[in-house]
Amino acid sequence: MADIVSALGELDLGRRLLTSPAELAAFGSDALTAFHQRALAVVVVETVEEVVATVRLCHREGVPFVARGSGTSLSGGSLPVEGGIVIALNRLNRVLSIDPDTRTAVVEPGVINLHVSAAAAPYGLAYAPDPSSQSVCSIGGNLAFNSGGAHCLKHGMTSNHVIGLKVVLPDGELVELGGESTEPVGPDWVGMFVGSEGLFGIAVEVTVRLVTLAEATRTSLAVFDSLQAAGDAVARIVRAGLLPVAMEIMDALAMEAAEASVKPGYPKAAALLIVELEGEREVVDADALRLDELLREAGAGELTATEDPDARALIWKGRKSAFSAVGWLAPDYIVQDGVVPRTRLGEALAEIGRMSAETGIRVANVFHAGDGNLHPLILFDGREPGAIERAERLAGDILRLCVELGGSITGEHGVGVEKRAYLKLMFSEDDLELMRRVRLAVDPGELANRGKMLEPAPAVA
Amino acid sequence: MADIVSALGELDLGRRLLTSPAELAAFGSDALTAFHQRALAVVVVETVEEVVATVRLCHREGVPFVARGSGTSLSGGSLPVEGGIVIALNRLNRVLSIDPDTRTAVVEPGVINLHVSAAAAPYGLAYAPDPSSQSVCSIGGNLAFNSGGAHCLKHGMTSNHVIGLKVVLPDGELVELGGESTEPVGPDWVGMFVGSEGLFGIAVEVTVRLVTLAEATRTSLAVFDSLQAAGDAVARIVRAGLLPVAMEIMDALAMEAAEASVKPGYPKAAALLIVELEGEREVVDADALRLDELLREAGAGELTATEDPDARALIWKGRKSAFSAVGWLAPDYIVQDGVVPRTRLGEALAEIGRMSAETGIRVANVFHAGDGNLHPLILFDGREPGAIERAERLAGDILRLCVELGGSITGEHGVGVEKRAYLKLMFSEDDLELMRRVRLAVDPGELANRGKMLEPAPAVA
Repeated sequence: MADIVSALGELDLGRRLLTSPAELAAFGSDALTAFHQRALAVVVVETVEEVVATVRLCHREGVPFVARGSGTSLSGGSLPVEGGIVIALNRLNRVLSIDPDTRTAVVEPGVINLHVSAAAAPYGLAYAPDPSSQSVCSIGGNLAFNSGGAHCLKHGMTSNHVIGLKVVLPDGELVELGGESTEPVGPDWVGMFVGSEGLFGIAVEVTVRLVTLAEATRTSLAVFDSLQAAGDAVARIVRAGLLPVAMEIMDALAMEAAEASVKPGYPKAAALLIVELEGEREVVDADALRLDELLREAGAGELTATEDPDARALIWKGRKSAFSAVGWLAPDYIVQDGVVPRTRLGEALAEIGRMSAETGIRVANVFHAGDGNLHPLILFDGREPGAIERAERLAGDILRLCVELGGSITGEHGVGVEKRAYLKLMFSEDDLELMRRVRLAVDPGELANRGKMLEPAPAVA
Repeated sequence: MADIVSALGELDLGRRLLTSPAELAAFGSDALTAFHQRALAVVVVETVEEVVATVRLCHREGVPFVARGSGTSLSGGSLPVEGGIVIALNRLNRVLSIDPDTRTAVVEPGVINLHVSAAAAPYGLAYAPDPSSQSVCSIGGNLAFNSGGAHCLKHGMTSNHVIGLKVVLPDGELVELGGESTEPVGPDWVGMFVGSEGLFGIAVEVTVRLVTLAEATRTSLAVFDSLQAAGDAVARIVRAGLLPVAMEIMDALAMEAAEASVKPGYPKAAALLIVELEGEREVVDADALRLDELLREAGAGELTATEDPDARALIWKGRKSAFSAVGWLAPDYIVQDGVVPRTRLGEALAEIGRMSAETGIRVANVFHAGDGNLHPLILFDGREPGAIERAERLAGDILRLCVELGGSITGEHGVGVEKRAYLKLMFSEDDLELMRRVRLAVDPGELANRGKMLEPAPAVA
């Protein structure tokens, strides 16, 4: 095992080859802090050539590796692989080009999500996918996990915005997938790579689509006396044919947490629905009238709306900080990421409420209501004996509920190490066998992020 | 080889197992009529179970097979494989369900493209991808070739509209890929299947997204005194931030052909640009003003627009019949399907004009201008010695030009047998090796549509 470390020494990385226990500890977890793993070494790359050289050495020595950006994965996606190497991509963080004519940008994987939009703003353009962690998470991680965000309701997930990739395959070969054309030749290899959780190699150059900044944006807050009523309002809006750019629901506990942390000034209620409309002036005005009407029909109480950028920013700051804000309410939490069909949202929420009451475990609900993506935050105190196990059991029950309702175990956080065991709830043995065969075709040694999403083959594990 | 035919006899298909030379001859070509191949047998399936049983027998006997819908492929995609079986899917042609709440439909692969929209119309919904052959081509073929169409400029290709699949893999296993959730788990397996030209098996159930019918639709005709001027107008429209649902260009020769055949009453000019706007009433009205302004700035001559459904239908009938209509101008033609970046459209058209003049071969141009997808129709008389070779040489030169300009060898017709040799213009040996490895992972015996898109491995070929 020390062979790989001495081999990496030949790359002359100097202080960018980390091997001391203190340095390695900093890379031992990602945002799913319940899991820890010590890597043999961390390589802080600065060029594509260094990625290729590192992967080639790992391939030669049969050593697994994981690429890491900002380490914000909520499913353990960037957790080190035991006895493996971490390839840190944070310094590959340049926006290489922006083309306003084709509305595309070419970026390196370590670029922070929000920096792409910042670079595109002078052209009246933006990068649409907006995970709550967008001020810190990197594009490489976004594409490994096909990240979403509040505004993906209208614009779609990361997979709808990545059109071309340069990828270092697990054997160190550099390939180009996709490109600027919207009309690809053959299978969608880019789509196969996006969401693959690092199993197919490391993207070193990413071509993304940019969207035009909207002429008008209007954010509404509507309060409801139950989560179910808020959920039903969402179904009503969709059925009416409106397509808001975002529809988010927070329950009382989540609002309380947000209030304690960033003070967004939300009204007090059992449930808050945030609906954002964007588009041309006339459309937003016409849709706003229809939206207010639908919200009232659905039983909304207090109903306010704003187009003021600062007021809107505060609303979103409250929503996007909700995960971290629950730290004000309990020492520990597990965030889940289940999906249910939009039409069964009310039912799912009622059942989660019942589970919470039955177990006595507090659950704060924050979710992308428009696409049925739930983020129940299960609160607990890790110092109480058995508390984490009880919380994990409830988390599992919620995922099973999502699948039973015709949904999914993950909307945007990925399977990682955390939900691997739940894949069987959704996929048949034949489905999983197909995935394994494709994985092995690309990476016979299962070196790239071994053990994430798919169980490694017995011989390798 | 006769083994497979007698094995198929055990399936008790009666008159649905075709083996006579006359019957097989009818399946010997698709719409790329220059290629012919005789299958050992044609199986006309009526159930998913029959597809599974047929594929299992092929797998057991090591016999290649190709699925065939309406046989409208322009790249030889549904050409029989030598010594293989054709699985005809035309009778698997039911729309299984339409769900207006989730705006999805589940259909069988043999359903005609236009029949999906017809079934969805009572709900105010439609299936967006609209190949010119939409009144005869089937959904299964559409997804194998990731078909586009005039209206894919706004709505995207087939891959943007297929969300779930039931697939019979090349070993006869039935797997489910994707589903109704917009937030898939892991890689986009559906995306890998769409556009794979039959190499990964046979889709037997397809879940597609439906779009809402627009409130207003306005179709403009603008004439220009050169193709280049029409192409530049398109770039100007896109740069201004308008997103028409379709932008199509036809040259004088293509218009002459359309006029001779379906008489759409197009104005006479060097180039015709068709631009269609659709959306809410207010948006279409506002965009129409801006569009007319942009077209005039770009040098448009005669400029007309209509919202009348019959007039619009005639405009599109002219455009969509252009391929077959060139039969009025020459006994034979090759249609190409190259793509160039939209910003280099004018340049590409000028160069194709120069090539046509230099070789003395007439080329009619019809294309999806909005996404840079060219369809040069190369006219010739196959009875003249050397004519087809000269036409093919010009076709190849046009594809090389497209790649040199940063584009692609195919926009929507696929690689098939016809453009296999040109893949190397676009992909490195490492890129192709990745594709081959994935293909072999799914189909080690290369039974599914062997020899299409990718060269078979030497041992198999």
